[in-house]
Amino acid sequence: MKFIISHTDGNARSGVIYTDHGAFHTPAFIPVGTQGAVKAMPHDVLEETGTEILLCNTYHLYLRPGTDVLQEAGGLHKFMSWTKPILTDSGGYQIFSLSPLRKIEEAGVQFRSHLDGSLHTFTPENVIDIQRIIGSDIMMVLDECTPYPCEREYADNSNDLTLRWARRCHDQSRRTSPLYDHSQALFAIVQGSVYPELREYSASVLSDMDFEGYAIGGLAVGEPVEQMYEIVALCNEILPQEKPRYLMGVGTPENLLEAIERGVDLFDCVLPTRNGRNAMLFTKYGSLNITNAQYKNDFTPVDETCECYTCRNYSRAYLRHLFQAKEISGLQLATTHNLYFYQWLMRHARQAIVEGRFNEWKQEQLLTLHKELLVYT
Amino acid sequence: MKFIISHTDGNARSGVIYTDHGAFHTPAFIPVGTQGAVKAMPHDVLEETGTEILLCNTYHLYLRPGTDVLQEAGGLHKFMSWTKPILTDSGGYQIFSLSPLRKIEEAGVQFRSHLDGSLHTFTPENVIDIQRIIGSDIMMVLDECTPYPCEREYADNSNDLTLRWARRCHDQSRRTSPLYDHSQALFAIVQGSVYPELREYSASVLSDMDFEGYAIGGLAVGEPVEQMYEIVALCNEILPQEKPRYLMGVGTPENLLEAIERGVDLFDCVLPTRNGRNAMLFTKYGSLNITNAQYKNDFTPVDETCECYTCRNYSRAYLRHLFQAKEISGLQLATTHNLYFYQWLMRHARQAIVEGRFNEWKQEQLLTLHKELLVYT
Repeated sequence: MKFIISHTDGNARSGVIYTDHGAFHTPAFIPVGTQGAVKAMPHDVLEETGTEILLCNTYHLYLRPGTDVLQEAGGLHKFMSWTKPILTDSGGYQIFSLSPLRKIEEAGVQFRSHLDGSLHTFTPENVIDIQRIIGSDIMMVLDECTPYPCEREYADNSNDLTLRWARRCHDQSRRTSPLYDHSQALFAIVQGSVYPELREYSASVLSDMDFEGYAIGGLAVGEPVEQMYEIVALCNEILPQEKPRYLMGVGTPENLLEAIERGVDLFDCVLPTRNGRNAMLFTKYGSLNITNAQYKNDFTPVDETCECYTCRNYSRAYLRHLFQAKEISGLQLATTHNLYFYQWLMRHARQAIVEGRFNEWKQEQLLTLHKELLVYT
Repeated sequence: MKFIISHTDGNARSGVIYTDHGAFHTPAFIPVGTQGAVKAMPHDVLEETGTEILLCNTYHLYLRPGTDVLQEAGGLHKFMSWTKPILTDSGGYQIFSLSPLRKIEEAGVQFRSHLDGSLHTFTPENVIDIQRIIGSDIMMVLDECTPYPCEREYADNSNDLTLRWARRCHDQSRRTSPLYDHSQALFAIVQGSVYPELREYSASVLSDMDFEGYAIGGLAVGEPVEQMYEIVALCNEILPQEKPRYLMGVGTPENLLEAIERGVDLFDCVLPTRNGRNAMLFTKYGSLNITNAQYKNDFTPVDETCECYTCRNYSRAYLRHLFQAKEISGLQLATTHNLYFYQWLMRHARQAIVEGRFNEWKQEQLLTLHKELLVYT
């Protein structure tokens, strides 16, 4: 993996990350394809949204289809027929959010499958081994994602454990090699809850370990948004300038712009896909719920200035009808629009950085982005 | 509407139907887009399967989005952004299969909406009016679709009522004009259950009324398949040679080939779409249930000789995974394959007719078509 920062504008950066499955541009939004599929989106539709890299979940793929199938397929790219880069999380977050039972020990974390209750253990070593079998272009270390709020003492101890696990993941990645004919990078994850000194400590220790990229985890879990921005800024002061920075699980269009301004390069989030399936559509003029009665006979597109497949072809009235009638294609059309919008936002953010007017452009966007579109004609 | 039969081979015919929304080739398979959408299929994907004409349901569209919205949109084509031909059924069949309450009288049929229980009436006149508002290229008359088995006396009386309704639909279509700038054809529906003399009578009376096309209804409702083929043959002996013949709600690939041999030009059926959503995939070598354990690590396509998007890009193992994981995209990929297969079958049937070897080709297909694919490698 190679990261070339071509332009900076304040703390904001624009560049390209090169992997053996091709390059993607940063700042990048990474759609979430939990089970090896972005919900409601065949790959061709996904690529048309401007998506250049996918996130898949180690926890889910480990449980189903399982590492035996993935290895026999020759890795996840081949299994799912996705030829562009893939980033996998380590599974830590899913264990904490999905497993009905978990036990954290120094060695690793024991958990029960949310599918069948079977008992499993993830260790820093085996999450690397699993991600080797998956063959993701970017692997993540095993971490504990602390909840919010979180006692300082718990956060401190958890942070130390996450750092020891990061070291073990790093070691395991050096002891092992890719199973397929492409290289795999390993990113660390900064934790430390909302405590600046823990975040600083985490970022410093991890920076010294020389990972190929750094994620900021444990945010957007309920803390005030200003606190999130402060921690992002703080981490990015410490993390190495020349390495990619990835803000995990974030966020709204507004969150993305604020974090880009503070030096973040990568994002993943279920918002555009999940909200799309719930009839909530993002536009540069605010968001709208397409099931609202006001759209019943609104024959204009979701956003007349949007060039996505959905807006080029269908009206709000028809989309509303599809949702009212519980037609599956409505889910795809809404998801397509939302992902296209997120990728549009990233493309324009990159352009604004290149042109040295990121802050000005961001201010313009914020005037309308966060509105809920109650009347829009 | 204009129907040109370019080739015949025995009773089988191949040709083109021209409408103001473009031409489509016969024998034609018409996918079912009940609510103004083929389930799980955005239009571009649908067109890639080779689909040239859609069926939509008057009953469903009348209830939702309603004629007010459809009229304001400028008709169904504009509402749903489908530029190719649309055929609408009259709603009769849905009243009998979906409505929790119905009352048939000379004037028409009273029914309750399956959505909200509200009371409505369809008459021969207003189903034409509604289809004028929908703006379908091919409208259907209101009929009573008799169940199987059906007492002869009931079938006889019902048949007479359907014939009187057909006359009234015909009259209403002559009294009214299209609301938009394209013409609309009206097809009659032959009923008469499994009684040859009733079918003969229905076909004769309707033939004399000079409709633009003729459907054979009330079949594939439980009667033995050989009886269905006999009635199809009988009706087609009587129906005018130069008009399109449409076998409603049929059927399996095998049914289609047998009916084409007996002179049918058009088919609609939910089988490829509904079965696809239930993981059942049609191939020229038989059908398979993609959730079977044997496909867990089968990295070949559903059909290596199939050129559909699904087979060109995805393996059985991945499709199985999508169904196991309840991923929505699995529904689209399965539907895409099945519709592509049905359109492939029609394309090859047309070619075989053109080349004067339909029966021979049909026999070849039947050797494998109806198999259930338990082991296929």
